[in-house]
Amino acid sequence: MRIKEGFDPTRPDLHLGHTVQFNKLRQLQDLGHHIIFLIGDFTGMIGDPTGRNVTRPPLSRDELDANAKTYTDQVFLILDRDRTEVAFNSKWLSALGSDGMIRLASRYTVARMLERDDFATRYREGQPIAVHEFLYPLAQGYDSVALHADVELGGTDQKFNLLVGRDLQRQHGQEPQCILTLPLLEGLDGVNKMSKSLDNYIAITEAPGEMFGKLMSISDTLMWRYYELLSFRPLDEIAKLKQECESGRNPRDAKVMLGQEIVARFHSSKAAEAALAEFEARFRDHAQPENMPELTIATGGKRLALPQLCKQAGLTASTSEALRLIEQRGLKIDGDVVADKTLALAAGRTYVVQAGKRKFARVTLT
Amino acid sequence: MRIKEGFDPTRPDLHLGHTVQFNKLRQLQDLGHHIIFLIGDFTGMIGDPTGRNVTRPPLSRDELDANAKTYTDQVFLILDRDRTEVAFNSKWLSALGSDGMIRLASRYTVARMLERDDFATRYREGQPIAVHEFLYPLAQGYDSVALHADVELGGTDQKFNLLVGRDLQRQHGQEPQCILTLPLLEGLDGVNKMSKSLDNYIAITEAPGEMFGKLMSISDTLMWRYYELLSFRPLDEIAKLKQECESGRNPRDAKVMLGQEIVARFHSSKAAEAALAEFEARFRDHAQPENMPELTIATGGKRLALPQLCKQAGLTASTSEALRLIEQRGLKIDGDVVADKTLALAAGRTYVVQAGKRKFARVTLT
Repeated sequence: MRIKEGFDPTRPDLHLGHTVQFNKLRQLQDLGHHIIFLIGDFTGMIGDPTGRNVTRPPLSRDELDANAKTYTDQVFLILDRDRTEVAFNSKWLSALGSDGMIRLASRYTVARMLERDDFATRYREGQPIAVHEFLYPLAQGYDSVALHADVELGGTDQKFNLLVGRDLQRQHGQEPQCILTLPLLEGLDGVNKMSKSLDNYIAITEAPGEMFGKLMSISDTLMWRYYELLSFRPLDEIAKLKQECESGRNPRDAKVMLGQEIVARFHSSKAAEAALAEFEARFRDHAQPENMPELTIATGGKRLALPQLCKQAGLTASTSEALRLIEQRGLKIDGDVVADKTLALAAGRTYVVQAGKRKFARVTLT
Repeated sequence: MRIKEGFDPTRPDLHLGHTVQFNKLRQLQDLGHHIIFLIGDFTGMIGDPTGRNVTRPPLSRDELDANAKTYTDQVFLILDRDRTEVAFNSKWLSALGSDGMIRLASRYTVARMLERDDFATRYREGQPIAVHEFLYPLAQGYDSVALHADVELGGTDQKFNLLVGRDLQRQHGQEPQCILTLPLLEGLDGVNKMSKSLDNYIAITEAPGEMFGKLMSISDTLMWRYYELLSFRPLDEIAKLKQECESGRNPRDAKVMLGQEIVARFHSSKAAEAALAEFEARFRDHAQPENMPELTIATGGKRLALPQLCKQAGLTASTSEALRLIEQRGLKIDGDVVADKTLALAAGRTYVVQAGKRKFARVTLT
């Protein structure tokens, strides 16, 4: 089967969220199917409106080209380079010309576009939808026509776009593709979809120590989700592990296993072991307690000044006490002493904050 | 000033309705302005959705080219060929390419498009609007950008499209054009806009006798509208004439004057006089009464079988009586004996129907 998945090169770094898709493509590739890794260098200029509540800013040709290169450099950490067809949709979408684009636009109605959840919401709430955003699903659907796709993969949020591909193939006399949607991976905050713009991601090129540390920072609940979507362990093995943790085994063991698996995949077993050793040494040195208060502060995605955070987390009685602590080198984030009184922490992450010798809190900013 | 008006070559024959626009262009031309007669050979492929309740079928390139030639052949019966710039919008709209078309589409929102009356109505009533219909006003507006238009003329129904041109010019750093809308001329039925598809039109290339006869067939009310929109007589002269008719002068005199003026314009004074003479001779021969019952039958735009018409107009007691009359050569339409028992009359016209020697009716089918 000809199996296609498209990625708009709008973000230069691939993260674990993308790999949910890539892993499935690799499985299908290993089963002998023909995988087409489609770079949406044309559709990227439009900007996929899926799940957005505002119109995306358009990318320039240069940005798209640079991002496309990063994509192909990184995706072959997972896919087999020799057996993957890389295609660029500008090839056939540019060739359509302005009249071809109009003919394409004639194949769908405004009403069917406005049935789409995110468009419907934006229209109802008076959020602007630019006319060209209606052309995105049509352009993506036309990719399936041009590539004679038998199957298209995408995130669950891509369902509408994938179905448009079926309609257009039917209108062009082709057998409509099957569509296969995969769940979207939550980011480190456990709430939002993993995405670079929310800064809640683990890039697949991140250093072993960074990658392992971030994976160790996620909540236990999120860990099982990551097991399901990222681990290559059989599902029954994961179920057994979860059972053990529910019966008293320290979930930290499971988290270490997951972190080791992922780091080993993108680096090496040796790098994974080194990352673990380093993490444990630091953990010992900083003597963080196993249990500490956990809390979530909603910042609406904005950064939060550290003294504010300390006060809200109950670590200090006031922001001025927090500032004094920083001066005295008595405030630590993830074990590191903070020297900058103006430090503000990004949302979408969990931090272990230590005030003085004994006060700890695990704070998630969303 | 650079004054532009666009015409999509979707109908091969120009009719008096078009000349309301052309006459104004000619006036402006005579005042020394630069007139651009724009042939929408690109926009014609989209099809102007203005005032439509269904999506137009797209025209082929060949049809467009043939129609465009007819347009330029005919428009110079009114405009001065030597001082008119003829432009084709495929020149810049084709050059946009598919990415240019997308950038153009990004300049307007779906909500603003759906504010347009005809789109709003269709959307509310569940009539399909194809996505490419949203591209029409943008393409027309882009014409004004490409042509650096100072003024654009159009029918009153074109107001939305003309305003889009202003917006796009502003976005391209140009001074927005002034827009000038002119009333739409009603067709021979006095109800609908004159249009070829409704068969209620007088083509500007029609033979003198046909043209004069059709003008003599319109209602007195419609005659004053035609005076206002088609005659070159000064408005105060027309007002005086109307006054005279209201004070007892036979409106037929005014109708003859109008018919003579129009026929002379597109043919010659001599042809106009000949048409009048022929008309009067025929009128005398057929001895139609000056006054006869007038009625309107709504057929929903469909043809109506002549026997049905006779019965509904009270000219015969039954359809079979009408059929007998046809056999006996006793039924006349506009003075001509009807021989065809299956004759059905087109809607959008007024007919003088005579049954036997003395029964007459002036019947309008709508």
